Amino acid sequence: MTDMIERVSPVLERLDERGRAALFTDARTARTFTSTPVSDRELLEIWTLAKWGPTSANMQPLRVLYVRPGVQRERLVRHMYERNQVRVDAAPAVAVLAWDTRFHHYVPEILPFRPELQDMFEADAEWRAADGTFNATLQAGYFILSVRAHGLAAGPMSGFDVDGVNAEFFPDGRWRALLVVNIGHPGEGAWGARLTRLADGDVVKWL
Amino acid sequence: MTDMIERVSPVLERLDERGRAALFTDARTARTFTSTPVSDRELLEIWTLAKWGPTSANMQPLRVLYVRPGVQRERLVRHMYERNQVRVDAAPAVAVLAWDTRFHHYVPEILPFRPELQDMFEADAEWRAADGTFNATLQAGYFILSVRAHGLAAGPMSGFDVDGVNAEFFPDGRWRALLVVNIGHPGEGAWGARLTRLADGDVVKWL
Repeated sequence: MTDMIERVSPVLERLDERGRAALFTDARTARTFTSTPVSDRELLEIWTLAKWGPTSANMQPLRVLYVRPGVQRERLVRHMYERNQVRVDAAPAVAVLAWDTRFHHYVPEILPFRPELQDMFEADAEWRAADGTFNATLQAGYFILSVRAHGLAAGPMSGFDVDGVNAEFFPDGRWRALLVVNIGHPGEGAWGARLTRLADGDVVKWL
Repeated sequence: MTDMIERVSPVLERLDERGRAALFTDARTARTFTSTPVSDRELLEIWTLAKWGPTSANMQPLRVLYVRPGVQRERLVRHMYERNQVRVDAAPAVAVLAWDTRFHHYVPEILPFRPELQDMFEADAEWRAADGTFNATLQAGYFILSVRAHGLAAGPMSGFDVDGVNAEFFPDGRWRALLVVNIGHPGEGAWGARLTRLADGDVVKWL
């Protein structure tokens, strides 16, 4: 089992140009998709790659709800902001990324040598929410790059009614939506112009 | 200039096994580093790759403060939680990742066709903070994978006194710290055991 592999010394390598292009420099957010379906296997593999990205204390609070086309998809479309509705409606696959408000219930499994952490998170809901949303959002970043690592285009959208999606799909309150991501093969007119990135000097400082 | 390249149709490709290993499956959080320095050029390139990851409305709120060894590093070490102090002290390079509370000031440059967004963010500080921290955290995920894409090991840490770091390095309140990331070549004892990932069925659901 992959989970059990333990390497004394991982090999560190620079990502080659093709990899850089696929994940970063050449990749873009897709606005349209072809009708080519994305298989359940591909969707699962997107997760099983993304899951290796690091989180604080290994808490892995991200959860993934894949919503198939048809009746279920319609339930999601109606909570999207207007210009995202047609995109979600037409995408071959759509993931609702959420964080699990009870991620700490897995402490015995994922951080067995620090069992006290479960009670600490249980006792402090504010810290738990801050830590859970932060780490799930880091994982959302890994997830988007993992979609691309599978030769697929991602269309992440934060423009939706979060409370509406939560009430619709997570009525017991355990999961809470963070981001909706369309997934598929890019269709006609998928790419807008590349938007400008900030000048390095406005972002990076040195001390 | 790379920023000006516009491709009608990016080539989508699956990441090969070496790339998957370097960024995800074989990569690990490093706890120690060799004394081999990381050049300023490498540190800048980590950013110039990570910057291509997508953010909502292209707002790119993440900021990066690199803190060199010596006097400046000592200012940071004292705000780290205990077991992170020696790690930050010994790392060849350290980045404080932060979000810019005034990221919306760049709207005319980064989203020129929606100038009204600047006023909307200005008027709603709560939405601005939620959006800014969310998108900067997504970018922190891209940043960690970009460190790895440069053949370097990352040591991300959320265990520090956030208010202390903010007061120490960002006294004007404009930037706010999110994560501290050690960067370098892995040293002796860098790797702990690979921590368990959650079972797929506890994370991924289908509708």
